[in-house]
Amino acid sequence: MRRKGESRRQDYAAGNGLLNRRVFLEGALLAGAAGSTAASAEPLAVPSWMTQPGAAFVGYGQPSRFESKVARMIVASPNPATVGIGAIRTPLQMLNGMITPNGLHFERSHSGAPDIDPDQHRLLIHGLVKRPLVFTLEALARYPMQSRITFLECAGNSGALYAAQAQPLNVQAIHGLLSCAEWTGVRLATLLDEAGVDPSAKWVVAEGADASGMSRSVPLAKCMDDALVCLYQNGERVRPSNGYPLRLLLPGFEGNMNVKWLRRLKVTAEPVMSKDETSKYTILLKDGKAWQFVFPMQVKSIITQPSPGLTLKGPGFYEIAGLAWSGNGRVRQVEVSADGGQSFAPAVLQEPVLPKALTRFRAAWQWNGGPAVLQSRATDETGAVQQTRAAFVAERGLRGQYHYSAIASWRIDEKGEASNVLA
Amino acid sequence: MRRKGESRRQDYAAGNGLLNRRVFLEGALLAGAAGSTAASAEPLAVPSWMTQPGAAFVGYGQPSRFESKVARMIVASPNPATVGIGAIRTPLQMLNGMITPNGLHFERSHSGAPDIDPDQHRLLIHGLVKRPLVFTLEALARYPMQSRITFLECAGNSGALYAAQAQPLNVQAIHGLLSCAEWTGVRLATLLDEAGVDPSAKWVVAEGADASGMSRSVPLAKCMDDALVCLYQNGERVRPSNGYPLRLLLPGFEGNMNVKWLRRLKVTAEPVMSKDETSKYTILLKDGKAWQFVFPMQVKSIITQPSPGLTLKGPGFYEIAGLAWSGNGRVRQVEVSADGGQSFAPAVLQEPVLPKALTRFRAAWQWNGGPAVLQSRATDETGAVQQTRAAFVAERGLRGQYHYSAIASWRIDEKGEASNVLA
Repeated sequence: MRRKGESRRQDYAAGNGLLNRRVFLEGALLAGAAGSTAASAEPLAVPSWMTQPGAAFVGYGQPSRFESKVARMIVASPNPATVGIGAIRTPLQMLNGMITPNGLHFERSHSGAPDIDPDQHRLLIHGLVKRPLVFTLEALARYPMQSRITFLECAGNSGALYAAQAQPLNVQAIHGLLSCAEWTGVRLATLLDEAGVDPSAKWVVAEGADASGMSRSVPLAKCMDDALVCLYQNGERVRPSNGYPLRLLLPGFEGNMNVKWLRRLKVTAEPVMSKDETSKYTILLKDGKAWQFVFPMQVKSIITQPSPGLTLKGPGFYEIAGLAWSGNGRVRQVEVSADGGQSFAPAVLQEPVLPKALTRFRAAWQWNGGPAVLQSRATDETGAVQQTRAAFVAERGLRGQYHYSAIASWRIDEKGEASNVLA
Repeated sequence: MRRKGESRRQDYAAGNGLLNRRVFLEGALLAGAAGSTAASAEPLAVPSWMTQPGAAFVGYGQPSRFESKVARMIVASPNPATVGIGAIRTPLQMLNGMITPNGLHFERSHSGAPDIDPDQHRLLIHGLVKRPLVFTLEALARYPMQSRITFLECAGNSGALYAAQAQPLNVQAIHGLLSCAEWTGVRLATLLDEAGVDPSAKWVVAEGADASGMSRSVPLAKCMDDALVCLYQNGERVRPSNGYPLRLLLPGFEGNMNVKWLRRLKVTAEPVMSKDETSKYTILLKDGKAWQFVFPMQVKSIITQPSPGLTLKGPGFYEIAGLAWSGNGRVRQVEVSADGGQSFAPAVLQEPVLPKALTRFRAAWQWNGGPAVLQSRATDETGAVQQTRAAFVAERGLRGQYHYSAIASWRIDEKGEASNVLA
C-alpha cells in the first residue's frame, strides 16, 4: 500500500509545492510521503546472493556491473581519424554529493590523451626568470604540497543554451563539462619564487605535452596566488585524461587554462596569443566585438535531480537536488523555483561550502502532479546573482559559445517527465 | 647541478631538522633545497608522445598504465576456497590529499562481495516500530539526502603494532585498513521516524545481504544522530566491495559496524550479541577481562611520506606528510617529531578540517643525512591526545587485536631508508 503525500499548507515556502527547508533540516516528513511501503508478514525473501560466497578481492576496484550506464557521454559523433579530439561529459544526473569520481571527470582534449612515461617527463620553468629550472616528478614530490577541492568547468559548458530554440538534451549533454575533485600539488608560487621572476614579467605561458602542444597565457598574479602544479586527483595520481602526470590547476578559471600534461611554463611580459585565446575561448557579443581573456567562471547553478530522463513516479514528496559554484569564491545562497521563476524558496546548502568548489544544494518539493518549471538561482560571496536567461541574452546576445551562466529551466509535465526549456 | 639544502638555524622548530611551519606556509624555501635542476641551453627534447595523436575517449576512465603498482594489498595469503574473506588495504604511501579514490578504498569482507541486483534489493525496517516498512532503492532516492566526508577505519587497523617486536611492514600493511570518502545517503533518523520507534527501543540490529549475513547492534542514539543509509560514495553509486547498493554509515564508529549490503534494520531493546560483537571486536585487556562495544575510533595519526619503501634521495628539504583523524570529532592539532619524541613541532593542517574525516597534515623537514625517528601525535577537539606506545601498552597490554591508536614511529637510516620501529 503506497500512501501519497498530503499537502501541509503551513510548510510551503514558494509556489507550486516548494516546502520550507525546515521540513528538510528536521527530517520531519509525512509518513509514506516519499514512497515507502508497509511491510507484509513475510517481508524479505532470502536472495540468491546470500546463498553463496561473494566475489574475491581485486587490487583496483570497479563499479557494479549494474551501473554500466553511469558513463561519460561524447555528444558529437567522433571522426574516426580524430577520436581523442573533443569532449566527454560527466553524467551529473546519476551522481550525488560534490565529488566527481575520477573515472567520470569530464575531459576536453585537443589531440587525445598522451601516454606519458612519468620517469621521462620534465617540467621546465624559463623565460623572464633568474634561474631556469627543470623538475622531474621525483623532485616535485619533495616540495610542500597543498590540497583543495575545486570545480573545473569547460568555458563551453552549457553552450547549448545559446540556441534560440530549446534542444531536447539532458543535464549531461548540456551541463556535463563540469566536475569537482580534490587536487593536490605544489604551489606554483613556490616554484616561481625558486626560479626568481624578473620584475618585468606579467604573464606565464603554460604548455601541455599533448600532440597539440595546447598553450594558454595565465596572468602572473594568478600563478602567484592559488595556482597548483598537481600530481594527485582525489588522492591518486592524476588520470591520463586529466593531465597525467602533471596538470596546472587555476581554481575558478575556465577549464581550458588548467593545462594538462604540463611540460613548460614560460614567464613573459605579454600573453602569447595562442590559438585557444584568439580563435577560441573569446566571447562574441551582439555588436560583433568580442571579450578576450575572460578567466573566472561566473556564479551558476543547475538542477541535477529531477532532470530529463529521471521520470517522477506519481505525486508526492521529492528532493530537488543540484549543484552551484562560482569561480570567484564561495556560494552564499541558492534559491529554487517550481513555477518558472515567479517565486523562489531558499535551498539547503550541503556543508562544507568551499571556495571555487561545487556546492550541493537540496530543496523539498511536494509535487501535485501538475506541470511545473524548475529553476535554481545562485548567489556567490561577492554578491553576484545568477541572471535570468532574458537578462543574460539582453547583455550578451546569442552569438557567444562560452561562459553561458544564466538560470536554466526544466519543465515537468503531467507524466512526470522533464525536458529542457528556455524559460 | 643539484644544490643541497643549507641549514637555516633560525627556522628550526624542533630537533633533528624540523622546520618552523612558517617556512611552509610562506613557501619560502631555499633555492634548490628540494632537488630542482638548473636548466641547460636545450632543456626539453620533444617526447615521442607529442609526435602522434593521443588516446580516444572512454566512457569510464582508468589510471595510467604506469601506475599499476598503486593497488590494494591482501596481507594474509587467501585460502583459495574463501577468496573473499579477509581484508584488502589502501596504499596510503602512494596517495596524497584526504579522499581515497573508490578503486582503492579498503575492504573487510566476511564472505566476499555479493553481486546484488539493485532492482531486487530491499531494505526492511521492523522490530519495535509502529509501522514496519520496506524500501526499494527507487523509494529511498526520493528522500532528502545528506553528504559527508568521513573516514572509515577497521577496528583491527594497526593491529600489527600489538606485536612485541617490530615487524618489517610498510604503512599499507600496518595502517591500510583506513580510507576516506564523501558518502551520500538518507538520514537513518528520517526512516526510523517514519516507521515510528517504540519508546522501549534502545538498539538497532543492522544486517548485511552477504552470505555471512554480517550483523551488528548499534545504539539507537547513534542511529538518530548522524547515521546515514548511503547510496553514493565519492559521487557515484557505492562500490560492490563497499556495500552496493546500500551501506550503513556510522561516522567515527569502527568500520565493521558500518554494515555493507544493508538489507535489514531491526529495532530492539537489547543488543543481539552477534558473532562480531562477542567472539570478535572486543578488546582483551591485561587482566583477562575484555571491553565490549567500544564504538568510536580514538584520535590517531600516521606518517605516510616518508615511510618504508619510499627512500630519501640525499640530504635536503623534504615534506613530512600524514593523516590524522578522530571518531569523536575534528582534529585540533598534529605535532611531528624527528627525534623519536624528544621534541615536537606543530604541523600544518590542510583545510577543510572536517569532523570524523581524515585530515592531511604536513611538516617541513631539513634532513641532515643522519638517523632519525619520525613520529606524529594528534589531538582532537575533545582534548584527547594520542598516547605514546609505552603509555598505551601500560594501559592495554599487548593481548588486544583492536583499536590500536598509539603514536607510530618510522626509523630513517643513513641511506634514507625507512622502517617500522616500536619507539
